[in-house]
Amino acid sequence: MSNDTGINGAESLVRTLVKGGADVCFSNPGTSEMHFVAALDRVEGMSCVLCLFEGVATGAADGWARMTGRPGLTLLHLGPGLGNGLANLHNAKKAGTPIVNIVGEHTTQHLSYDAPLTSDTEGVARPMSHWVRTGRDSLGIAQDGADAITAASTASPAGPGQIATLILPADTAWGPGAAPATPAAPPVRGKVSDTAIATAAQALKLGADTLLFLGADAVLAAPLMLAGAIAKKTGARIMGRTSLSRVERGAGRVALPRLPYPIDISLETLKPFKRIVLLGAPDPVAFFGYPGKPSRLAAEGTEIIPVADGTHDLMDALERLAEATGARAAKPILAPLARPALPKGALTAETAMASIAALMPEGTIICDESVTSGRFTGPITENAAPHDWLQITGGSIGIGPPLALGAAIAAPDRQVINLEADGSAMYTLQALWSQARTHAKVVTVIWSNRSYAILTGELAAVGAKNPGRKALDMLSLENPALDWVALAHGMGVPGVVAESAESFTEALRAGLAENGPFLIEARI
Amino acid sequence: MSNDTGINGAESLVRTLVKGGADVCFSNPGTSEMHFVAALDRVEGMSCVLCLFEGVATGAADGWARMTGRPGLTLLHLGPGLGNGLANLHNAKKAGTPIVNIVGEHTTQHLSYDAPLTSDTEGVARPMSHWVRTGRDSLGIAQDGADAITAASTASPAGPGQIATLILPADTAWGPGAAPATPAAPPVRGKVSDTAIATAAQALKLGADTLLFLGADAVLAAPLMLAGAIAKKTGARIMGRTSLSRVERGAGRVALPRLPYPIDISLETLKPFKRIVLLGAPDPVAFFGYPGKPSRLAAEGTEIIPVADGTHDLMDALERLAEATGARAAKPILAPLARPALPKGALTAETAMASIAALMPEGTIICDESVTSGRFTGPITENAAPHDWLQITGGSIGIGPPLALGAAIAAPDRQVINLEADGSAMYTLQALWSQARTHAKVVTVIWSNRSYAILTGELAAVGAKNPGRKALDMLSLENPALDWVALAHGMGVPGVVAESAESFTEALRAGLAENGPFLIEARI
Repeated sequence: MSNDTGINGAESLVRTLVKGGADVCFSNPGTSEMHFVAALDRVEGMSCVLCLFEGVATGAADGWARMTGRPGLTLLHLGPGLGNGLANLHNAKKAGTPIVNIVGEHTTQHLSYDAPLTSDTEGVARPMSHWVRTGRDSLGIAQDGADAITAASTASPAGPGQIATLILPADTAWGPGAAPATPAAPPVRGKVSDTAIATAAQALKLGADTLLFLGADAVLAAPLMLAGAIAKKTGARIMGRTSLSRVERGAGRVALPRLPYPIDISLETLKPFKRIVLLGAPDPVAFFGYPGKPSRLAAEGTEIIPVADGTHDLMDALERLAEATGARAAKPILAPLARPALPKGALTAETAMASIAALMPEGTIICDESVTSGRFTGPITENAAPHDWLQITGGSIGIGPPLALGAAIAAPDRQVINLEADGSAMYTLQALWSQARTHAKVVTVIWSNRSYAILTGELAAVGAKNPGRKALDMLSLENPALDWVALAHGMGVPGVVAESAESFTEALRAGLAENGPFLIEARI
Repeated sequence: MSNDTGINGAESLVRTLVKGGADVCFSNPGTSEMHFVAALDRVEGMSCVLCLFEGVATGAADGWARMTGRPGLTLLHLGPGLGNGLANLHNAKKAGTPIVNIVGEHTTQHLSYDAPLTSDTEGVARPMSHWVRTGRDSLGIAQDGADAITAASTASPAGPGQIATLILPADTAWGPGAAPATPAAPPVRGKVSDTAIATAAQALKLGADTLLFLGADAVLAAPLMLAGAIAKKTGARIMGRTSLSRVERGAGRVALPRLPYPIDISLETLKPFKRIVLLGAPDPVAFFGYPGKPSRLAAEGTEIIPVADGTHDLMDALERLAEATGARAAKPILAPLARPALPKGALTAETAMASIAALMPEGTIICDESVTSGRFTGPITENAAPHDWLQITGGSIGIGPPLALGAAIAAPDRQVINLEADGSAMYTLQALWSQARTHAKVVTVIWSNRSYAILTGELAAVGAKNPGRKALDMLSLENPALDWVALAHGMGVPGVVAESAESFTEALRAGLAENGPFLIEARI
């Protein structure tokens, strides 16, 4: 084979990924990725962030992509390394985030020998990927990379992107490379039919017992303005899915209540609605199935009116709905700026959130993995300075610290605040080290309740009665208590404990003043 | 359906697992496993160890099973939770360890609604499992559990067990259960043919240029005595695979050199042999493929004589080989007890290992994930008190701290020493918390070289020349340095830094005196 380009497959791939906008690589490389790593130095446009665990890399790529709208990029080591990244790929898949995973693999010839690290890498990739391909030769790997970018940039029902996993046998990296390839544009997101718009508009015009249920990227500021106008004009209500990838909210934006998580409260919340119009969100379902309780959350007899999912052009659909409901000229209700007073006294999730709402600067990015502690604290920040709110989307805990890392690298001029349950933080605490290395402006707030608090409720909800010591031991993070300040310090992140509202405020001020990461263990 | 037993599916399953000898459950439960958790309190024979990350649970189950010979048991939460456990299941699979994973799942009816945590759980399980089943109803789940025990206890080519994954929809746990089931005995391990024995015996009798290459459970003390007798009688050499699940070694045992890891040294090591007899080990292959280097490590023209793999009765094969080579009465060379003098001066992996060899008590279990630092330190302990040596078997890093946890719980009267690379330890550092909670007698020695040192060599080995700053950043754990004593302290484990041979010895004495875990950050 001729090699007129003078570059190897790895370099042709790195250059292709940069062309495709995937220019920050969250990496946990091993031997099989060494040529890719070596190529990084020869390509100016690519930055690399070392992650000390693969779940950090995949969660960070998700956070980066949610903030940039471009494909998040990971570099992982063989099947087991990809395995370690699956949980956060699951979350990214449920968020509809565009992600490209480059997974190193044994050389094509070496694979047949069942070496210790050999596994079914495609098999590992498939459950959490929309698109999987194994590179066949070094001259084709640039085009494979371009195809991965296109696949990642293709909208899915959940949102604007997909998970694309490209497996890179080492010889396709070290062999001669072709010229970098240019990714094809992804398919244009489809327009909703006129009939669907007319049906939905008719339902919305019936007013307060119709719900416009939103998800995917219909909860950014611009589409929410249209949804708010429709609500203002028709009296219909708007609400977001329980878990949303990225909401633009705060002062000057349309406030969006979210469907609560607990099964009984969510059933109660949807009970008043006779019609639910779906726009970027599916027919609402419970997080888990419970004995004697329904999986679908809408009341019996509620009419479900599906308009669009993430594969559709949601802005276009909202514009046409606004037109059809006569809401074009309506002025949506916008949240006024109203910073709460700094709280005093006991530290609770509520008082801590009041401090955050009072002090957080405009443009803050909240990465919310509060699980129990933060569940009812969203309204406190509704009138804070305008900000972004990123959530755990697939229910697989351990997303917060990596998501915050990725968001901070995507938006280095903005403050990131990671609201984090202690149990969840333990899954991917290694992200703190990468935050320290990159001077990521992340304040991590650990809700230190020393338990998997959510499970105490769940144990009751599934009808498991009178738990004994062994069961309760499985829900407790005591004995020993985790010392989060020590853990942060061990990874180069300064931190303090807060035990009162006042000390939390002081800690938060210190954290916001840092030119890098900071951690507050909030003893609530 | 009748429910004469008065127990639910979860309890019928827990009782079945206890009958099958799987009576310690390394758990990271979520909502869908709450009935299983509740059942723990009603079944006396089952102990539970909470792990704060699934990779800890699977690695600990591996360590427990390697030491007890019974199926290691995990409790995991849905597809993403299983995903987090895959890397150490990969290691266990390559070790041939018997493992039963119980993976909670949505109720059968809820699965159709694509709730946030829904994923293809069987798809996640398959690449790292020999046996996968999803429970269909609560009355059948006891038999499913019994079948999982039988599958896990069935020998595989790698060793005495297999990975069995039983997926447990929540309704199969909370519905009425049948009586606990009794697992069927696994298939008896096959006998090697007389022809194979005769061929191998003939080769061994040719003496020093024949290698008896050992793996699986042929490297425990009893089979090694036979292998040592054959070597003594015939002059043939014995050697173990590069990575072994569990070797019984030290004073009074037959010393077993292992095939080194680095490609050039391993090729050199095998060069002298004209014949390689395989007993519980495959035809030796390189860990990775490298440009211009072979995948198979035996020299061109070396005769490969396969006798048995892990599915065979290896003791029987060795007894018949001893008979056929006239080695029945031969006395193998046994390692004499010779504790080294306590070292002075600079702290290196070698001097630290001398301290360990001098001080470790009889019956110590070494869990070795040293990667670069420990590679040549095995011989130093050859004449130490008799001990077990457990290794990373599938090359997927992050096994050491969990393996040590599981081994300590399996053998509470024995000391465990975890030799651990800093980069690897970061993958599953959460294991320290479970060590603290269970007062596991584990001394963790962190080889703190502040880099993925192995990759520096690998970068050169694959021919990636002149790495620049970006590439080198991907191999360095500096900036910031990890403070292992702080990390351990954060999880309730006392620890110290050692910077000289003398301070290492002092730290080791302190660690061995602890009635629980201890960590030494060895700055080498």
